[in-house]
Amino acid sequence: MVMGRGYPEHCSLDEALKILSEEFGHIRSKTVTAKPADALGCILSEDISSKRNVPHYTASAVDGYAMSARSTAGAAPSTPVTLEGGKFWWVNTGAPIGDADSVVMVEDTSMEPGASANVGSERLKIFRSLTQGENVRAVGEDVMYGQLLACCGDKVTPALVSLCLCAGVENISIYAKPRAIFIPTGNEIASAELWLSGERASPGVVVDSNSAYAASIFESWGYSLDISPILPDDPDVISEATRRAASDYDLVIVSAGSAKGRRDHSADIFQKLGKILFRYVRMKPGRPAMIANICETPVICAPGFPMSCAVSLWSFAYPLAKMLSGERVAPDYILNAIGSRESLEAEFMVQHSSPPGVAEWLRMKCARVGENTFCWPLSSGASVLWALAEADGIAMLREESLERPKGSKVQIHLTKRVDLAKRLLFQGSDDPAVGLLVSIMRNKGMDLAIRAVGSMGGLAALARGEAHLAAAHLLDAASGTYNTSYIRQFSGDRDWRRKRIFYREQGIITAPGNPKAIGGFGDLAAGDVVFENRQPGAGTRVLLDYMLRENGLKSSDIRGYDHISITHMEAANKVASGVADATLGIASAADALGLHFIPIAREPYELVFCERFGEHPAAEALFDAIESVEWRDAVSRMGGYEFPETGDIH
Amino acid sequence: MVMGRGYPEHCSLDEALKILSEEFGHIRSKTVTAKPADALGCILSEDISSKRNVPHYTASAVDGYAMSARSTAGAAPSTPVTLEGGKFWWVNTGAPIGDADSVVMVEDTSMEPGASANVGSERLKIFRSLTQGENVRAVGEDVMYGQLLACCGDKVTPALVSLCLCAGVENISIYAKPRAIFIPTGNEIASAELWLSGERASPGVVVDSNSAYAASIFESWGYSLDISPILPDDPDVISEATRRAASDYDLVIVSAGSAKGRRDHSADIFQKLGKILFRYVRMKPGRPAMIANICETPVICAPGFPMSCAVSLWSFAYPLAKMLSGERVAPDYILNAIGSRESLEAEFMVQHSSPPGVAEWLRMKCARVGENTFCWPLSSGASVLWALAEADGIAMLREESLERPKGSKVQIHLTKRVDLAKRLLFQGSDDPAVGLLVSIMRNKGMDLAIRAVGSMGGLAALARGEAHLAAAHLLDAASGTYNTSYIRQFSGDRDWRRKRIFYREQGIITAPGNPKAIGGFGDLAAGDVVFENRQPGAGTRVLLDYMLRENGLKSSDIRGYDHISITHMEAANKVASGVADATLGIASAADALGLHFIPIAREPYELVFCERFGEHPAAEALFDAIESVEWRDAVSRMGGYEFPETGDIH
Repeated sequence: MVMGRGYPEHCSLDEALKILSEEFGHIRSKTVTAKPADALGCILSEDISSKRNVPHYTASAVDGYAMSARSTAGAAPSTPVTLEGGKFWWVNTGAPIGDADSVVMVEDTSMEPGASANVGSERLKIFRSLTQGENVRAVGEDVMYGQLLACCGDKVTPALVSLCLCAGVENISIYAKPRAIFIPTGNEIASAELWLSGERASPGVVVDSNSAYAASIFESWGYSLDISPILPDDPDVISEATRRAASDYDLVIVSAGSAKGRRDHSADIFQKLGKILFRYVRMKPGRPAMIANICETPVICAPGFPMSCAVSLWSFAYPLAKMLSGERVAPDYILNAIGSRESLEAEFMVQHSSPPGVAEWLRMKCARVGENTFCWPLSSGASVLWALAEADGIAMLREESLERPKGSKVQIHLTKRVDLAKRLLFQGSDDPAVGLLVSIMRNKGMDLAIRAVGSMGGLAALARGEAHLAAAHLLDAASGTYNTSYIRQFSGDRDWRRKRIFYREQGIITAPGNPKAIGGFGDLAAGDVVFENRQPGAGTRVLLDYMLRENGLKSSDIRGYDHISITHMEAANKVASGVADATLGIASAADALGLHFIPIAREPYELVFCERFGEHPAAEALFDAIESVEWRDAVSRMGGYEFPETGDIH
Repeated sequence: MVMGRGYPEHCSLDEALKILSEEFGHIRSKTVTAKPADALGCILSEDISSKRNVPHYTASAVDGYAMSARSTAGAAPSTPVTLEGGKFWWVNTGAPIGDADSVVMVEDTSMEPGASANVGSERLKIFRSLTQGENVRAVGEDVMYGQLLACCGDKVTPALVSLCLCAGVENISIYAKPRAIFIPTGNEIASAELWLSGERASPGVVVDSNSAYAASIFESWGYSLDISPILPDDPDVISEATRRAASDYDLVIVSAGSAKGRRDHSADIFQKLGKILFRYVRMKPGRPAMIANICETPVICAPGFPMSCAVSLWSFAYPLAKMLSGERVAPDYILNAIGSRESLEAEFMVQHSSPPGVAEWLRMKCARVGENTFCWPLSSGASVLWALAEADGIAMLREESLERPKGSKVQIHLTKRVDLAKRLLFQGSDDPAVGLLVSIMRNKGMDLAIRAVGSMGGLAALARGEAHLAAAHLLDAASGTYNTSYIRQFSGDRDWRRKRIFYREQGIITAPGNPKAIGGFGDLAAGDVVFENRQPGAGTRVLLDYMLRENGLKSSDIRGYDHISITHMEAANKVASGVADATLGIASAADALGLHFIPIAREPYELVFCERFGEHPAAEALFDAIESVEWRDAVSRMGGYEFPETGDIH
C-alpha cells in the first residue's frame, strides 16, 4: 500500500476491507418498524420479548380423559379406579383441560356401562395413577410472558416469524435493507433496450451489462438495487448525480468506463465531493476499484470491464451492504458474495503464473479422471463474461502465489452444483458438432467438459491420463491415411478404442464473395493475402502443412502462418471481421458466419477412448448421444458433415 | 415400512423420498418464456445460444495508437520507426480500430513535432514492431455467434443474465417456479389477525402459526406460497378445497390439525381424491406426515404441531418444489432446506436417548469451553417453536442411533452464524436478571449461553470443566452462611473467583389476592394447598428444605413437594395457571405474572468463575455488563433486587 494524492493506493484486499470497516463499520441504514413476516432476513435493531404465554391456557398434551389426579390415587392394572360420569371428560390433544389437573391417555382406561342407560352415565376404569400436571402442557411451556425471544443483531428467520406471531408480537424493529443505486456512465454505453433492439449496436458501442449483473447479484443477496439512467462522460453531470445519490441512498456504485482518462476524472469528482478511502486494489481483475466516503455514504467506483465490475461488487458492495443492514461480516464473506456453498481441491492441469504482488480471481472448470481431480482456468480477461457464466467455481490465488506449476493443488469455491462423477472430460480436436453433445449429455443427467487442444494435444492428454476421450483427424503424410499411425505412437501398448463419428469437409474460408479470388493454396502465397492459421498440433494445421508440401510451398510463403486461432470458429471469425483474408477450416464454421468456402478435403473425425472408458457412468450416455437422431439432425443442419455406416474401427 | 390400507405406512425418510422421486421426478411446473433478468434462480428448459458476436467489432484492448502492423516492421528501441500523421490514430481501450489491424501501447511510442506546425502533422516514433492483431480484441473473443451459452437444466445466474444481454438474447425458456398453496384447517385455529387483536385468544384456540412459517420458509427458498383461508373441520369443505387446489396448483400442502381423529379424515379425503403414496414417517417430530398424488399434483398433509409441520416442509415440500422447477435434488438437500451453510462436530453435554427405529431432529445449542465443543438439545416437544428459533442448528440422529451417552459426538448443521470463541457458557441457578445479560453481551459483539441447572448443578458443571461460569445462592444450614462451604466442596484446590452481583428477595408466591390465605410455611402443610417445588440442587429448593426444618415440617407434609419446575418463571406460571396454589420463588417472577408475594429471605446471588475465566475474550464484556447502568436499571425495574457496594469477595 502506498500513499497517493492524500489517500492509500494499491492496497491489498485485506487492507481495503480494514479501511472500510473502520470507516463504515458503525454506520447503519435507518431502523424501521415492520411486521415480522415482512422482515425475513433482516437484522433486529431491538430485542424482542414475548407479549403472551404460549400456550396461554393449560392444554392436554394427548388424546384422553381429563380429571383430577387425586381421583386416580392407587390406580394400577391390578387395582383400577373407577370414576362416575362427570368426574372425567374427553379431551383432544391441545384442548383445554378446564379445572382438571391431569389427563390419562385413552389406552390406560376402559369405558364401563353406567347404572342407568342414560348418556353420560358411563363410568371410566383407570389403570394408572396420575401425578398432577401429567400429560398437560402448562401455560407458557413454549415461551413465557416477557421472555426474551431474540436479541438486537439477530437475523429474522422463518422460525422467529412464527414464534413472534404465537407470542403476540405484532411489530419488530429492524435495520432497513440498504437503499443502493448503481450509476452507469460512459458515452459508449448503450442501454439494454437500444442494444437488444439493434438501434445501438454499432462499432464502439458497448451494452450496459454491468447494471444487469449488479441488479441480479444484489437480488441474489436479498437486496434490491436501483439503476440510474446511463450518464454521459461529463464530469459535472456525473459529479451532481453522485452528490445527489450519496445523500438519497445508503450505498452508491458508480460504474466508470474503463478508459484511464475517465477513471481519473472520477477520482477528481470523488475527492471534491468527499474523502477517497483508497484507490487501486492489488487484485486481478478489479484493480482500478476506488471507494470514497461522501457525506457518510460509501461510494464505490467500479471499473467498467464486466469481470472487474463483478469482482468489485463481491469484494466491496457485498460487505458494505451487510454492514449497513447491521449484519456482521464474516471473514469468509466472499464465499457468500459469489454464492458458493462448497469448496473442492483440484490440481492445475496447466501451469499458471500470476502477475507479481497481485491476488488473482480465476474462473475454474473441473473434471475427475480416475483418482485425479483436475482443474483449468477459463480465459481470464477482465472483459470476458462467458468464463464467469461457464465456470464451476472461483479460485482465489493470494498475492504471495506466483507460479503454479502443473499438478499443484488449488481450492475451488464452487458456484454451481457439479457432479464430477458424471462428467466426461474431452480433450482434442475442436469441432462445433462435438459442442452439441454437451446439452444432449446434460439432458441424460450426465455431463461433458470440452477442452479444444488440437488432435495431437488430445492424444497426448489421453496418454497422460488427463482425459476420458480425445478426438483426432490427423493425416499421415507418408501413408496418406488418417489417425492410425498417430494413435499407435501415443497409445503405446494401451488398448485404446476408436470410433469414427463423422466425415467433415475441410476447405479454404474467405470473405463472402471471395474478394481476393482465392482458388487454391497457390493463391495463399500471393503477398496481399493474410492467412489465419491454427495452433501446432491441430489436425487442420497438419492438413495445411500437407497441402503446402503437395503444392510445393513453404510456410514462409504464407503471410500470417504464425497467426494462431484455437478453434475453427475463432479462425473463421478473424476472416469475418477482416483481420484475415483466409483460413483453413470446416464448412460448418464458414456456414455459421456466412463466409465463402472452397472445399479441399473430406476427413474422418474419430473419437479415441482411454482403456477404462467403458467403466465411466457417462460412457453409455455418450454412445447413445452419438447415435441419437437429435444430434445427427442438428449436425447435418450445420452443413459439411456425413455419417459413416458404422463408426466402429477394428 | 409396512403396507397400510393399500399404501406404505411408517416408511423411513429415505424410503419416502424414493417414493416421491419415482412418482414426481419427471413432473415439471409449466415452462414459460421470460427475460433473463426476471428468471434469476430459475432452471432453463431449453439451451441458450448466442445471437451475436461479443465483441461485435474489432476493439482495442489497450489505450494507444491504432495502425497497420506492417508499418512497424523492424521497429525496436534502437531502430524506431516513424509514422506520418494519418497513418496512426489514438484509441481508448474498447474503441474500434477501424481498418487498422493492431494497436501499439502508448508507452512504446513517443510523439514528434511535425514538419509544419499544423495540428495532425505530428509524427509518431514507434519502438516496437507489432504482429497483426496485437493488443486487439477480435470479434467474438468473448462469445461467438451461435455459441452455446447454457444448457437446459442449468440455473440462471447473475453472470448468465448479463451474458445473455451481451449476446443479444432477449428471452429464454425456463421452468416456472411452482405455484404452491398452503391450506390451514381446524376449528380451533385462529387467523393471525384475530389472534393478534385478541379477539380469538380464548382457551382452546391456537393461532395459525404454520401458515406464517410455511410462507417464510418458502420465501427463504426463493419460492412464493399462497395461503388459503382457514377451513373448518368439515370433510366436505376440506375435500372440495383440496380437489380444487390440486387442479389449480403445482404443489399443495394441507395442514391438518394434530388430533388423531382429524388426521384420519384427511386420509379418507386423500384416498377418495387420488392415491396416497405413504403415511407416517419414522421420524420425530413429523411422524404423522402423509403425501398423495391427486391428479398428478403432489399433495402433502402436514401435521399440525409447529415443529412437525416445519420438518414436513423441509423433508418433502422443499425437494418437491425443486423437482417441479426442474432442479436436481442433491442428496444433502436437507441442509439447504433448513438454510445451513456449515456443520460442526460437538459432544453431547447430557445423555440423550431416541425412541427406537425413529430418526430424530434435535434443535441444538453449542458452546466451547477450553478445548471441548459441547452441545445440548433444546426442549424437543413437537409443539415447541421457541427451541427452533433459539437453536444454533439441527442435529439429525439416524434411526439406528438409540442411546447417545454424554460425551458422544454429533454433527450439528448450523442454521445461524455462531462464533463460539466469543460465547460464554453459564450454568447455574436460574434468574431472569441473568437472562437480561444476554442481549447486553450481544451488543458488545460477545455472546452468553445460559443453562438453568440449579446452583449445585452449576458448581458441578464448573468442576467438570463444562462451564465458564456458574451462579449460586446456596444456604449452608449449619453455618447459616451462603455459598462458601459449597464452593469449597466443588472447587477442591482450584482457584475459583466469586462475584456477588445482587441480593434478591425470595418468598412464597400465591395466586393474586392469596385466596388460600397463606401466611407462612405452616400454611403450606394444610392439606388443600398444592405446592410447586424446584428441582433437586436448586438453591431455592435448598432454601425450602431449610425453612421446612426451621418450621418443624417434613417434606411429606407438603402436597406437591415432588412437582418440579426448572425455573422461577415456570414455577410461578404453575401458580398463575392454577395448576398449583403456591411456590417458593423470587419477587420478580411474582411481579412479572401479577401474583401475590410473601417475603421470606434476602439472599446473595453470586457468580462463580472457572480458574482461566479471565483469559476468555468475552470475560471483560461480562464484567462491564454487570456494572452497566443499562443492566442495573432493567434489573431494578423487575423488582426485588438490590446491588451490593462491591461484588468482590475475598
